[in-house]
Amino acid sequence: PNKLAIIHGKSVRRTWRQYYDRVLAVASALKHTCKVTPNMKVAVMLNNTPEMLEMHFASPLLGACLCSINTRLDPAGVAFILQHSEAEVFIFDAEYDAVIEQALNLLSSADKRKLRFKIIAIDSEYHFEQSKTMQFDMSYEDLYNAGNGSALMHWEQFEGPNNEWDDIALNYTSGTTGNPKGVLLHHRGAYLNSIGNIMSWSLTTTNNCIMLWTLPMFHCNGWCYPWTIPMLNGRTICLRNIDVTKIFELIDKYDVTHFGGAPIVLNMITNAPEVDRKKLKNKVYVLTAGAPPPSIIFKKMKALGFEVMHVYGLTETYGH
Amino acid sequence: PNKLAIIHGKSVRRTWRQYYDRVLAVASALKHTCKVTPNMKVAVMLNNTPEMLEMHFASPLLGACLCSINTRLDPAGVAFILQHSEAEVFIFDAEYDAVIEQALNLLSSADKRKLRFKIIAIDSEYHFEQSKTMQFDMSYEDLYNAGNGSALMHWEQFEGPNNEWDDIALNYTSGTTGNPKGVLLHHRGAYLNSIGNIMSWSLTTTNNCIMLWTLPMFHCNGWCYPWTIPMLNGRTICLRNIDVTKIFELIDKYDVTHFGGAPIVLNMITNAPEVDRKKLKNKVYVLTAGAPPPSIIFKKMKALGFEVMHVYGLTETYGH
Repeated sequence: PNKLAIIHGKSVRRTWRQYYDRVLAVASALKHTCKVTPNMKVAVMLNNTPEMLEMHFASPLLGACLCSINTRLDPAGVAFILQHSEAEVFIFDAEYDAVIEQALNLLSSADKRKLRFKIIAIDSEYHFEQSKTMQFDMSYEDLYNAGNGSALMHWEQFEGPNNEWDDIALNYTSGTTGNPKGVLLHHRGAYLNSIGNIMSWSLTTTNNCIMLWTLPMFHCNGWCYPWTIPMLNGRTICLRNIDVTKIFELIDKYDVTHFGGAPIVLNMITNAPEVDRKKLKNKVYVLTAGAPPPSIIFKKMKALGFEVMHVYGLTETYGH
Repeated sequence: PNKLAIIHGKSVRRTWRQYYDRVLAVASALKHTCKVTPNMKVAVMLNNTPEMLEMHFASPLLGACLCSINTRLDPAGVAFILQHSEAEVFIFDAEYDAVIEQALNLLSSADKRKLRFKIIAIDSEYHFEQSKTMQFDMSYEDLYNAGNGSALMHWEQFEGPNNEWDDIALNYTSGTTGNPKGVLLHHRGAYLNSIGNIMSWSLTTTNNCIMLWTLPMFHCNGWCYPWTIPMLNGRTICLRNIDVTKIFELIDKYDVTHFGGAPIVLNMITNAPEVDRKKLKNKVYVLTAGAPPPSIIFKKMKALGFEVMHVYGLTETYGH
């Protein structure tokens, strides 16, 4: 429990014990303050921050269904998902308050009433211009404080899913052929994917996996790695936004062993100016999905000391 | 497909392709010659030989239930299991023909009729005195030859289980509190255990797992490792009988990385005379279950270069 589990920015360092306690506090407050019940949709629009990691456990503990919204969507896109998912609680990063304010204005009165709780997550590592008019019900830290010290401080006291086929997450497609389509992930599938990740990427409990979160966790729940990494006692290095200088810096500083990302991230790395790069101390394993990158990218990545594995993902199937 | 999958004794070297083809041929013959149908019990009394590995895939391919009998049982014990399991096909190693002859004599006429096929596996690596009176229907190689070249040479042509809760194996307890009790393992549990093994023993597809079969496969289906090792493209080194000189020899000769066994095997290793030992070239990982061995055994094993993990096994539960 005292091993370092999460590193975020300059100031956030959390052990497994702290991670666990915060998840239970947040789940407790979601239950008692926000009246989250099983199968209810809880929407989040969060970067790869500790809040996002916590919500990946707090929501399933309540048997609720986490709906992670792409942080790059415009107000219409966000409004569509809020309406279509019938989310009742919405937790969003302060970076998006202006987009969300516009999105909420697009909702019908009925949809506005349905969305009972709007919770703003203010990242201490990020300075933002707060919208003057945006209204929210509480901050994420208020939520955490509401649950902290609650009697419900052991995971077995939560309902969890009724059965393994219950939904753990609702994710939306990017909407290339019309409106985004909702894709439900069940607990069973999430488990099989999470444990299958271990085999397919040769992860072990003994090789001190240190994962840099370049892959957005809103994308297919970060390919289920927010659940895989804790199975392995791995360490999570948060990253709010893709920044190639930062990627090299964090790899060097925290001895990152693994990260995942779209081919564009590999492009950014191989095209980074010499001055922004740092020589890798050890081999770093990279997982990429989507259309296969050109072979020159693989060659360049290899020359830099990265071992890239290209995978094919199909949200609707499970197991590797 | 051309990687070496199985090593047995001086002469048996089989690739994945050969292993796969033999499994399909044996399954095909069990279906057509022995009329094995879904849920039928197929009993085996085999050492850690290629036949035992093959049966761990041939039987499930037919949706049949593999009943592995402890090779150390006396005729009464074998007779009890044959009768109680209602096995219709029985494949046994030639080493046990005398015990089995006596066991069969203990069966009622009805039970004798129920057991429609008696198949003797004659290990080319083992010389035995054949019973003059024991009667069997065919040899295991006859079975293999009957199926070889059959149209059914792709796994998708077999029924497999109807659903994941179907039984894959029936194992019997050692009967310390009366008659042995049957324990059913379903496909679902076998899968979860097989993939869980990967995480709990830090196995990977990339570290070239080479498994020495000191743990009897009849014991809880070798903790599901006959299914785990192929997932990893690992290599199986067969071992008919526990012999400490042989264990050191095989580790040295085939660069064994992993083996499992009861604490008694660890005792034998630590107590082996200097002359029978070979210095390990690399660290060898050992899994042991049952009552915890005394701490001196762990110390001695470590000094010899083995890394021992002690686990607790409960046949009735699944997942790690």
